[in-house]
Amino acid sequence: MKQYLTLDPWNIIEEQYDPQQQEISESVFSIGNGYMGQRANFEEAYSGPSLQGSYMAGVYYPDKTRVGWWKNGYPEYFAKVLNSTNWIGICISVNGTELDLAACQVKSFRRVLNMKEGTLSRSFTAALPDGKEIRVEAVRFVSLARHEIGAIRYAVTPLNFSGTLTVTPYLDGDVQNKDSNYDEKFWVEVHKEVTADNAALTVRTKKLDFHVTSVMTFEIHQNGAKLALELEQIEQEKYAGYRVQVEAKQDEETVIYKYVANVTSRDYGYAQLLDAGRSALQEAAAAGFGQLYEEQVQAWAAKWRESDIVIEGDVAAQQAIRFSIFQLNQTYTGEDDRLNIGPKGFTGEKYGGSTYWDTEAYCLPFYLSTADATIARNLLIYRYKHLEKARENARKLGFVKGALYPMVTMNGEECHNEWEITFEEIHRNGAIAYAIYNYVNYTGDDSYLAQYGVEVLVEISRFWEERVNYVPAKDQYMILGVTGPNEYENNVNNNWYTNRIACWTMEYALQVLSDLQASDPAHYEELVAKLALAPEETAKWGDILAKMYYPVDAERGIFLQQDGFLDKDLTPVKDLAPSNLPLNQNWSWDRILRSAYIKQADVLQGLFFLGDRYDLDTKKRNFDFYEPLTVHESSLSPCVHSIIACELGYREKAYEMYLRTSRLDLDNYNNDTEDGCHITSMAGTWMSVVHGFGGLRVKDGVLHLNPFNPGHWSAFSFKVMFRGARLQVTVGEQDVTVTNETETPVSISVYGRGYQLGGLGHVQVGIGNPSSSAIVG
Amino acid sequence: MKQYLTLDPWNIIEEQYDPQQQEISESVFSIGNGYMGQRANFEEAYSGPSLQGSYMAGVYYPDKTRVGWWKNGYPEYFAKVLNSTNWIGICISVNGTELDLAACQVKSFRRVLNMKEGTLSRSFTAALPDGKEIRVEAVRFVSLARHEIGAIRYAVTPLNFSGTLTVTPYLDGDVQNKDSNYDEKFWVEVHKEVTADNAALTVRTKKLDFHVTSVMTFEIHQNGAKLALELEQIEQEKYAGYRVQVEAKQDEETVIYKYVANVTSRDYGYAQLLDAGRSALQEAAAAGFGQLYEEQVQAWAAKWRESDIVIEGDVAAQQAIRFSIFQLNQTYTGEDDRLNIGPKGFTGEKYGGSTYWDTEAYCLPFYLSTADATIARNLLIYRYKHLEKARENARKLGFVKGALYPMVTMNGEECHNEWEITFEEIHRNGAIAYAIYNYVNYTGDDSYLAQYGVEVLVEISRFWEERVNYVPAKDQYMILGVTGPNEYENNVNNNWYTNRIACWTMEYALQVLSDLQASDPAHYEELVAKLALAPEETAKWGDILAKMYYPVDAERGIFLQQDGFLDKDLTPVKDLAPSNLPLNQNWSWDRILRSAYIKQADVLQGLFFLGDRYDLDTKKRNFDFYEPLTVHESSLSPCVHSIIACELGYREKAYEMYLRTSRLDLDNYNNDTEDGCHITSMAGTWMSVVHGFGGLRVKDGVLHLNPFNPGHWSAFSFKVMFRGARLQVTVGEQDVTVTNETETPVSISVYGRGYQLGGLGHVQVGIGNPSSSAIVG
Repeated sequence: MKQYLTLDPWNIIEEQYDPQQQEISESVFSIGNGYMGQRANFEEAYSGPSLQGSYMAGVYYPDKTRVGWWKNGYPEYFAKVLNSTNWIGICISVNGTELDLAACQVKSFRRVLNMKEGTLSRSFTAALPDGKEIRVEAVRFVSLARHEIGAIRYAVTPLNFSGTLTVTPYLDGDVQNKDSNYDEKFWVEVHKEVTADNAALTVRTKKLDFHVTSVMTFEIHQNGAKLALELEQIEQEKYAGYRVQVEAKQDEETVIYKYVANVTSRDYGYAQLLDAGRSALQEAAAAGFGQLYEEQVQAWAAKWRESDIVIEGDVAAQQAIRFSIFQLNQTYTGEDDRLNIGPKGFTGEKYGGSTYWDTEAYCLPFYLSTADATIARNLLIYRYKHLEKARENARKLGFVKGALYPMVTMNGEECHNEWEITFEEIHRNGAIAYAIYNYVNYTGDDSYLAQYGVEVLVEISRFWEERVNYVPAKDQYMILGVTGPNEYENNVNNNWYTNRIACWTMEYALQVLSDLQASDPAHYEELVAKLALAPEETAKWGDILAKMYYPVDAERGIFLQQDGFLDKDLTPVKDLAPSNLPLNQNWSWDRILRSAYIKQADVLQGLFFLGDRYDLDTKKRNFDFYEPLTVHESSLSPCVHSIIACELGYREKAYEMYLRTSRLDLDNYNNDTEDGCHITSMAGTWMSVVHGFGGLRVKDGVLHLNPFNPGHWSAFSFKVMFRGARLQVTVGEQDVTVTNETETPVSISVYGRGYQLGGLGHVQVGIGNPSSSAIVG
Repeated sequence: MKQYLTLDPWNIIEEQYDPQQQEISESVFSIGNGYMGQRANFEEAYSGPSLQGSYMAGVYYPDKTRVGWWKNGYPEYFAKVLNSTNWIGICISVNGTELDLAACQVKSFRRVLNMKEGTLSRSFTAALPDGKEIRVEAVRFVSLARHEIGAIRYAVTPLNFSGTLTVTPYLDGDVQNKDSNYDEKFWVEVHKEVTADNAALTVRTKKLDFHVTSVMTFEIHQNGAKLALELEQIEQEKYAGYRVQVEAKQDEETVIYKYVANVTSRDYGYAQLLDAGRSALQEAAAAGFGQLYEEQVQAWAAKWRESDIVIEGDVAAQQAIRFSIFQLNQTYTGEDDRLNIGPKGFTGEKYGGSTYWDTEAYCLPFYLSTADATIARNLLIYRYKHLEKARENARKLGFVKGALYPMVTMNGEECHNEWEITFEEIHRNGAIAYAIYNYVNYTGDDSYLAQYGVEVLVEISRFWEERVNYVPAKDQYMILGVTGPNEYENNVNNNWYTNRIACWTMEYALQVLSDLQASDPAHYEELVAKLALAPEETAKWGDILAKMYYPVDAERGIFLQQDGFLDKDLTPVKDLAPSNLPLNQNWSWDRILRSAYIKQADVLQGLFFLGDRYDLDTKKRNFDFYEPLTVHESSLSPCVHSIIACELGYREKAYEMYLRTSRLDLDNYNNDTEDGCHITSMAGTWMSVVHGFGGLRVKDGVLHLNPFNPGHWSAFSFKVMFRGARLQVTVGEQDVTVTNETETPVSISVYGRGYQLGGLGHVQVGIGNPSSSAIVG
């Protein structure tokens, strides 16, 4: 861990060129617009350490699985996030010498990710090996307004000479994934065409036949005027571009504008791709860099209007929370219901797959609260569309009925190949059901249930029905051989969380069916017929609910993570010599497994999800037992602990937990940011603030707030979209102010006292004091 | 499974050429002499399906581990059994056409493995593509008397023409392993030299620098006379040989004798290898094929004298049991205490490693009973020599003291890389302790304990001491997170077998220490000092013994395989639809794990090892509970069930279990014999006969027999070496006869009645009737 970035409320700033930090910065400074994105690779040639990464959402590669020992039921492939055509490339040479920072003396260097505007800029002064010095000012973005478009402004100024610049803007599809299982390249060329107007390259994946067409054009300006250029057209294998020579005068700027459109066969027929790309490109180029930039600023302003969090008096925290929000909004915009939220977003290729249970367990709340309900709905629709694949997945594993959603997926099929995760973390199925509840509870959109939700709930319930086993001697149901959310256990029996979420799903499914039968009997009958739902099935679910076994320790008054948990050595983490931590780097796998140490919230995850069913004393007893055993070696762990700590009034613990993820990538806390950023855990950071410090819950159609100021900030505020209204909640040292920024009236509760907040109204309440004078505007 | 081999009491016979069976036959007809061995590849060129395999014991390759997901503590390499220089090669061409059975019309074909004499022969008549017919009679062996020597007699007779034979005898080191992790070749050339007398090739492994030198010479005879030949000397990369042309007359035999010496850097300095090889070769060639053959017949006669089992009235059973004994004797002769018994012997490369717990658990009894005690002792010395590595292995996994022997090894280091096996099957450590007890009990060689055994026992006990965990709330010790012998469970708590063998080890160690203290106090003090054995340690072992937790079901009166076993679905195997079996081909891994089905004896393994501590009722209750749940999907499973079934008087079950492995490879029962034969399970087959049907046990220095005739045989007899005597035990339909074939008197017990058997004496007892008239000769 090395803190090398400058603190700033709206920008991520790197002030010097350091090849050792380059791959970390490539991750942190990544840009994306939900449709495409890329690591902060340099435009010009670079021979230093670098992980090239340019990604098109939904375009992936099924790389054949490679394991040491094959086990029956393994998926045959692992779906790789696919490094695609490098479209940012602009090679620069100065009197024949290639600009390559790794070969230069870099005299100044500054890289800025402007989160407010959604742009990546870089300026540097470099002395080439022959002593010629140039200054470069580069700025680029992927357009949020026109998602197929990327634009670059790249300005070169000779500082101690006048001479010839050779400029080579290009598209290069001859790229590869670092994590290819068989060191194979995944792309082959389909078509390329370089004309006087634009250069186009279409490549396709060797499997699945995804096509990606990139079309580029460029201009060069000097003294505010576009130059007429003599173009050399370049066509090579999987490569298209231009080369031009420009005379550059000392101290005068030569500005290259490069515009690129990237279109894929996910949206167009193969035959339409070239036209579609050219057409999008022409419109963008006609608009010009200035207008595109202005659109970008406006689009991001709209995002911030809905999702910003302001932290006063702590610039490190301010920068960190905005970075989290910015990355979440870059990764997923919710416009395309075929997409999801990859663990690394557009910041790296590692882990593969685009969809984990992270989406339902950690990310959904962010999108529910910071965007229109259709965005969160699309995350649900995504799983609905994968229902048939989830059924197939259950069949592959030997189940006669029901659906088991994959642990990791791109297209609905399981694409993870570690059995402990793939086969045994069946709790994921519960999170997918829970997300439906969460969405309906938050939005009040009951229609989703009848139209989509109930099918998913029934199929998941059927899976649980078959997966439990009845133990006649005890007249109880059990779930054997699972891995719970805590991946530092494996193949355990009766993981409390899994048993609980399984039963909760069946219970919720029964309730939804019953409500539907009452409210719309005709549609209910239709659904029962469509799903061939037999009365014996729902009766069986009821029986399982009644007779499910839950491991508990009556003496301590806690739920047991799994059978036999108390037989472990229960030495708390704080009593371990520091040299043992992190366990995943210092202990062998078997030792971790047989220890009591918890990677991420497990019982506590259940108490968080089903928080309204457990009283504070129960939560306290469990938190007090499990927190001291938790090592938080997953970036998804601290947020849940932080939120429950808030509920319990453990404010220092809550703040400590919040800090553990808030700057995870900015400070490269886990020494792995070079692989990409931890996108889904950023949603957890957001939750820590809004659900934790803000105490946000939704009960019976009312937004409840129970905020406190963690004490290290003079004030903080967050935005919440709720039932058509947008609220700003500001938590100061004395008061909480909730302002309705919209015309839509809304019911809220602060510290348990209800308020009807009119359009543009506000309420002010003393911290923790519902009886304090409340002014409703 | 296809039964294509001819039944015969002493030979394995294949009567026709079938390319589909070729790789299976290559395994089954393998030959070896404990020092080297090879699959039954053809001498001449062969373009059909074939797994080339020629192996030098102890020469291996540490292939870098390749796994899907790395886990801390994985070994860095997997030690591969190494395919080495092909030294059998003799290419034949007839008037310029290469002899290749895959390209010929094969008119007759017969391959015979003569187990009595230890030779592999093959005769065939083939029509070449041009219609020329030849007859070939080939026989070869690896010499048991001169272990570095291989000899081949290869005779060619033109049947419908006279013409020119081109004969190319060669050494080819340009070979590879099929299972190479990175498709790499492991050998590089060091030296080659082709002279008028012999051709030599030295190759070395890319890692570890093993050198193997092969030296060959050859003669060609016609009409009983050696031909003077004009030799063409061939040297190519990793290849040395000769080419000669011989005029062959119709119906007259041209006989090629090829002699090869293979020597390795395990036995000679690098600089000595060539001389050593040449010297061994010259002696062998001077002796000539006839004398070498005669030596081979004599050497094998001696083996059979000590180890033969005769089964009368069932030629399939007779052939099978001799095949098992033959393969065991081919694989390990006990002359070199650096060697061990690989799971595939010299019959294939699969699995890698040379040493599994199979050696201690299944193979040791065979060598104890069929060879001089020094042979079994060398198997123990092997582990003694690896003690330091076992200590290192424990350190690598985080243990402060003690030794953990590897699950699979070549040189003492762990070389398996599946964590469920490597990390969690710690019960193996108990088997290594048990083997010491087994050896001492059988041979009465107490001196082994003082000299070697006690160190191993102390270090293993220390491992258990650290590995158990104390549960204060229960005032008991437990062992969490293990895999027992049943590999269809993983990461279970309190596997009864593991807990039991752990305690047994500590108990035995304490007893051995106490005996030693009494019998040789000076040596005892020396050992205590050398091992820095503290009184607290032995006191702790005693405490663990007293307070170890064992899972039981009091109601059923059984030991539980592990915590929670009774929560599983206990449907017996016979009630599963046959389409489910074998489970390992039809069920996903998670489903197997959460089922109650047992791959191989687990609780029953403990009741077998510690058989004298449990009464018949206990064994019966456990057998009756576990046998119906056992799928026997390990070749090591049925033998233990068979032996306990014999004890319980379940004779049909015992015979059924015996049949499950007796012809495993001969009938390719598991469809995997093409990878090699299941050598270690052959020891289990032997145990089924001698310990099962023969009821052999050793108690207090007395050999106990409790034989019965399984009823499908008119009689069977086996040989047993015991305390310097060799006994032949013949079990007929009415009587059991035990004959002392040596001059050494011996105490035995038959059906619980003791006899003092003088030199060359015998005793005859009615089956199952100790009070019947017994005649002691």
